Amino acid sequence: MSVTNSLIEQKLKTAEEVAALLPEQVTLGCSGFTPAGYPKLIPVAFAKRIEEEKKLGKEFSINLYAGASTGEELDGALAKTGALKLRIPYQSNSHLRNLINQGETDFIDMHLSHVVKYIEHGILPKIDAAIVEAIDVTVDGKIYLSTSSGMSATYIRNAESIYIELTDTHPLELKGYHDIYLPNHHEKGLPINILTPGDRIGLPYIQVPPDKIKGIVRSNKPDAATVFKTPDDDCQNIAAHVLSFIQHEIKKGRIPKEYLPFQNGVGNIANAVLASMAKDPNFHSIQMYTEVVQDSVFDLIDAGKLDIASTSALTFSEAGLKRFHENISEWKSKFVIRPQEISNHPEVIRRMGLIAMNTAIEVDIYGNVNSTHVMGTSMMNGIGGSGDFTRNSHLSIFMTPSLAKDGNISAVVPMVSHTDHNEHSTMIFVTEQGLADLRGCPPKKRAELIINTCAHPIYRDKLHEYYENALRVSKGKHTPHDLERALSWHVQFLKTGSMK
Amino acid sequence: MSVTNSLIEQKLKTAEEVAALLPEQVTLGCSGFTPAGYPKLIPVAFAKRIEEEKKLGKEFSINLYAGASTGEELDGALAKTGALKLRIPYQSNSHLRNLINQGETDFIDMHLSHVVKYIEHGILPKIDAAIVEAIDVTVDGKIYLSTSSGMSATYIRNAESIYIELTDTHPLELKGYHDIYLPNHHEKGLPINILTPGDRIGLPYIQVPPDKIKGIVRSNKPDAATVFKTPDDDCQNIAAHVLSFIQHEIKKGRIPKEYLPFQNGVGNIANAVLASMAKDPNFHSIQMYTEVVQDSVFDLIDAGKLDIASTSALTFSEAGLKRFHENISEWKSKFVIRPQEISNHPEVIRRMGLIAMNTAIEVDIYGNVNSTHVMGTSMMNGIGGSGDFTRNSHLSIFMTPSLAKDGNISAVVPMVSHTDHNEHSTMIFVTEQGLADLRGCPPKKRAELIINTCAHPIYRDKLHEYYENALRVSKGKHTPHDLERALSWHVQFLKTGSMK
Repeated sequence: MSVTNSLIEQKLKTAEEVAALLPEQVTLGCSGFTPAGYPKLIPVAFAKRIEEEKKLGKEFSINLYAGASTGEELDGALAKTGALKLRIPYQSNSHLRNLINQGETDFIDMHLSHVVKYIEHGILPKIDAAIVEAIDVTVDGKIYLSTSSGMSATYIRNAESIYIELTDTHPLELKGYHDIYLPNHHEKGLPINILTPGDRIGLPYIQVPPDKIKGIVRSNKPDAATVFKTPDDDCQNIAAHVLSFIQHEIKKGRIPKEYLPFQNGVGNIANAVLASMAKDPNFHSIQMYTEVVQDSVFDLIDAGKLDIASTSALTFSEAGLKRFHENISEWKSKFVIRPQEISNHPEVIRRMGLIAMNTAIEVDIYGNVNSTHVMGTSMMNGIGGSGDFTRNSHLSIFMTPSLAKDGNISAVVPMVSHTDHNEHSTMIFVTEQGLADLRGCPPKKRAELIINTCAHPIYRDKLHEYYENALRVSKGKHTPHDLERALSWHVQFLKTGSMK
Repeated sequence: MSVTNSLIEQKLKTAEEVAALLPEQVTLGCSGFTPAGYPKLIPVAFAKRIEEEKKLGKEFSINLYAGASTGEELDGALAKTGALKLRIPYQSNSHLRNLINQGETDFIDMHLSHVVKYIEHGILPKIDAAIVEAIDVTVDGKIYLSTSSGMSATYIRNAESIYIELTDTHPLELKGYHDIYLPNHHEKGLPINILTPGDRIGLPYIQVPPDKIKGIVRSNKPDAATVFKTPDDDCQNIAAHVLSFIQHEIKKGRIPKEYLPFQNGVGNIANAVLASMAKDPNFHSIQMYTEVVQDSVFDLIDAGKLDIASTSALTFSEAGLKRFHENISEWKSKFVIRPQEISNHPEVIRRMGLIAMNTAIEVDIYGNVNSTHVMGTSMMNGIGGSGDFTRNSHLSIFMTPSLAKDGNISAVVPMVSHTDHNEHSTMIFVTEQGLADLRGCPPKKRAELIINTCAHPIYRDKLHEYYENALRVSKGKHTPHDLERALSWHVQFLKTGSMK
């Protein structure tokens, strides 16, 4: 059912009409955090306009800012125009990724909690147009966002013009899920008064001067549905190691019996961990303070175990979204959707003592983690929130299967080819092979633990051989390396297609 | 003038008597943060006992925890016994450094803001004896620390026995400089209510049950005086670049006219920056929220420019200490000495929006920083607070001369041999050659800026050659590298003694 009022009627435009208003050299600040709550019609219409006008010799150049990744209709459509010059701060679209790795599109890979200040302080090109998906806009300019908060409040505030895709794909009961609060980056800081994941400190809408809204486009296009794979044995084994470790920490008195709030990254491993918690009778009353909530949250709800989930986005499958809509009023006390500056805020993360669970591309024998660069040079998705959470959480857990590419890549390498999380900040590593607790371990002890516990058996001898040689030839014996061979596994993979 | 009371009289011992009480396998938690406020008599007596008893076939093993680095009488004396098995979380003693890099002594190089929890949660071996320097102990067990706070409160709380070196080298007016506050790591977190550098939220002493104090040793041994070199031309040039950049940021509205609080690392470059601020008429009303205050603070005081300095240690030269003593009552409103968990707390750093200035060993063309490992394998001092500050400050500035070892080492390299601060967290790089502002720059833009602005001219062509070759041969063009050559500058230095 579509909302309406005099402001909406007055500003109503087609996507094509809005697309026609956008400058040829344009910086767009879009809603969207994972494929949730991003604009879908205006970007596609803009892409169509670009394709047509390029034939007439016009030149376009787009800087695209969003919360994190978005869906095909935004990242994909604009990437395909060839006009995308810059993208911040995270992405996961295959077309865009190719452009980035071919050197065609610039990408600034940022800690998600840093983006607001960079925008507010004018470090990046100024935003011409904010394009945000919303479920309602009131006559006096209150914008009610859809399924993600991300960077929307900041982009709206800093944009020259605001365009809204008014979606009817969600019930209006979604109002009240959001908690929009942002520190003022031009004034002296005050405490962020969030003590527990459910605390609300802001407003359920974004207030704008109505005349800054230059167009409203009605939309009935749903978010790209996320497809979840059934967790494989590796995911299940990783989850089992994590759960047993958390119980161990409770026994040691380092995690209270009522737990600490969990943050978990996106993807199959993270989902397997939550699904396992739902099944495990040792787990109950789960609180999440995270940046993305996925279908696995339903397992916790079904098991009667979800206390509260604070997030910056609700990213569901088609079936998951249906369930969410059916229970949308009842579940309002279960979810809070926050701007990414707050979902990922170091102050709140440190205070609550989160248990952070994120995925690594590769780890090295001394505990450094690469989460972003395949073979050191190609961008996968970006650091996202993993740095925000790793650096400030009570426990930081990195998870990855020990092998990739049919066994031709070992996730444990002598030296990571790019460092996103360093040995000082990382703590726990888990593969399907086992869990290594590196806290309180000097480098050489870490190497032994990671090789013997986390590496796949087919690479263990080779890792031992590297390490023992490094012990012999390294000038410094604090963190022994043979610098001539430290990156040789990656070099070999690039030449032969295998690290074996 | 020596303090006395019935508790002190009752617990009085010689250093040798205390040394005789320490177990042969012992974990010591000592005061001291930089050579300020560390115990000097008991460690030397213990070292003497070890040397003597080793001849009788006794075996000793020491785990040594302090706040950060300490002086020769603690780190040096114990290192020389050969019994030092483990040291945390930072050090700068040449004997100890040699042992670490020979692989004889384990060293855990930690973010200074992480140490309290690791101790409170029993991640590290339990502390048998806390040995702290104090200026007074009251009958009811109030311990007044000397010139540093560091980890003392936590070590005292978690130790089996407490030993005190009661120093008469400072006037009793030092009482009131400390603000001892620590979050309870076994309960739910609350905001740290520090809004400005001078805010006091704790007590000026550490309260202990008097019977936990097992010995008090009178001391008249001063802290090892730090010797400051006159800043050379490189330091002066770096300071000039930094000051002009700060003025530029004020003009841009990103730093308010009344500034943000400054954090500055130890050493000549950091001191040159403060000395330059004292001279520059554009600077006034300086606030510092830092972990170490050195003699350069007097330049600010003399210029009437120091508002307040929050620190975890006062580390002065002999002349500096004399001046401090002469003004100790008057300056009580100018200084706050805090536990390192608070001086380095992510929450407070982020809230205040610090301007952090730290020294790098090397930086790479994409903005990654190595602050700890010489040629990737030998520990220099440790990460200290640089990660705490870099990751959470408003502005993070890394400073280094562009050359080391008579020009045989370039501080700008293709790829750092160890990453302590990664490209997502670093912002500003300064050498005597110039300042590169990497904020909002994708990787390839960063490479151009760093090479052209920061690298020494004698290495610029070689860096360009590496980068242009990487652009050609790199599989991914997001962060182009030639992995076969990425560490070749270090390899060449190890073989030939020069990167040229």
